[in-house]
Amino acid sequence: MAIRYPNGRRFNEQKSPTKKVRKKELTYSNRGMTLEDDLNETNQYYLEKSIAVIHKKPTPVQIVQVDYPKRSAAVIKEAYFKQASTTDYNGVYKGHYLDFEAKETKNKTSFPLQNFHKHQIEHMKQVQQQNGIAFVILRFSLTDEIYLLDAKHLIQFYEQKETSRKSIRKLDIEKLGFLIKIGYHPRIDYLQVIDTVYLQDK
Amino acid sequence: MAIRYPNGRRFNEQKSPTKKVRKKELTYSNRGMTLEDDLNETNQYYLEKSIAVIHKKPTPVQIVQVDYPKRSAAVIKEAYFKQASTTDYNGVYKGHYLDFEAKETKNKTSFPLQNFHKHQIEHMKQVQQQNGIAFVILRFSLTDEIYLLDAKHLIQFYEQKETSRKSIRKLDIEKLGFLIKIGYHPRIDYLQVIDTVYLQDK
Repeated sequence: MAIRYPNGRRFNEQKSPTKKVRKKELTYSNRGMTLEDDLNETNQYYLEKSIAVIHKKPTPVQIVQVDYPKRSAAVIKEAYFKQASTTDYNGVYKGHYLDFEAKETKNKTSFPLQNFHKHQIEHMKQVQQQNGIAFVILRFSLTDEIYLLDAKHLIQFYEQKETSRKSIRKLDIEKLGFLIKIGYHPRIDYLQVIDTVYLQDK
Repeated sequence: MAIRYPNGRRFNEQKSPTKKVRKKELTYSNRGMTLEDDLNETNQYYLEKSIAVIHKKPTPVQIVQVDYPKRSAAVIKEAYFKQASTTDYNGVYKGHYLDFEAKETKNKTSFPLQNFHKHQIEHMKQVQQQNGIAFVILRFSLTDEIYLLDAKHLIQFYEQKETSRKSIRKLDIEKLGFLIKIGYHPRIDYLQVIDTVYLQDK
């Protein structure tokens, strides 16, 4: 059983490392670490219960130099982080293709658009063209409110970014998006929203 | 325009590297490199023509040490290759979730099952349970014959691996799979097979 802090957050028990490999993967920045943990746990839950098959893609890395020591694993000695050309999460749920990006902010009243790259916006457009379900999961970390917002809204706001807009107002997210109930296991049950919003009349 | 060798193979023009980063990503082994190139080109073609959105997942890497030099990009100084928990390719085509692995062999009459990991087989089963389309693309490199084989057949053969079977006979692949026509652009038009085999009566 997972041990949890009183606030419901998971206690990350460090497993004894093999080959000095640290268990946790580093990400491009530290933003989003907790949301990522919670989503990984949620996706693991969906997988174990045969509810959906959704995975986070590995962090894209440009590998430059690799050593092949005798009698042990290859060691990457020089590599660089690359910008992702797609969103971080995708998979299949009841035959439907799901595709999303997850981000969090410490802001109280708005969500900065700089959290998203042009490539990701482009990718979400392409997914919607192919009748995939594309969305973002947005977390306001100070109040722990998590919203699911369809990609079409994000794309619309993003396209105003060039001119004036730097962020999406929280009011708009509340109006256009859907609050995801935060639970214990799974912690972020976003498929509940998918069921009611996207698959209701299917 | 891409320059090609007389046999139709692409000439890989090395773009001038920035920051000493080599253009090509290294993979876990060298097997499958050419097939990978051809599939990346095919998927790029599908993307540009708005036919489908299918990407190769980044190679999973366990990052152990990162340096943050001043005024330049973060450098990964120690990392290890991890075994993938899913297949390499997935995406969406006409609303359908596609998921596949691609492998090649120099054998003439059979395809070794050791090309596939238990995790990948498990993943393909899960995808099929969610009504996703899961398959493998198998290339016999000496004759440049490429087959699409539904995951259900691979799973069946794989489950005989524990006892006796070490490979799939080419005869069986010919019988149960579908030959993919090799073209110029795109080079491996596997969606043609998807159309006729999976989506014909939809």
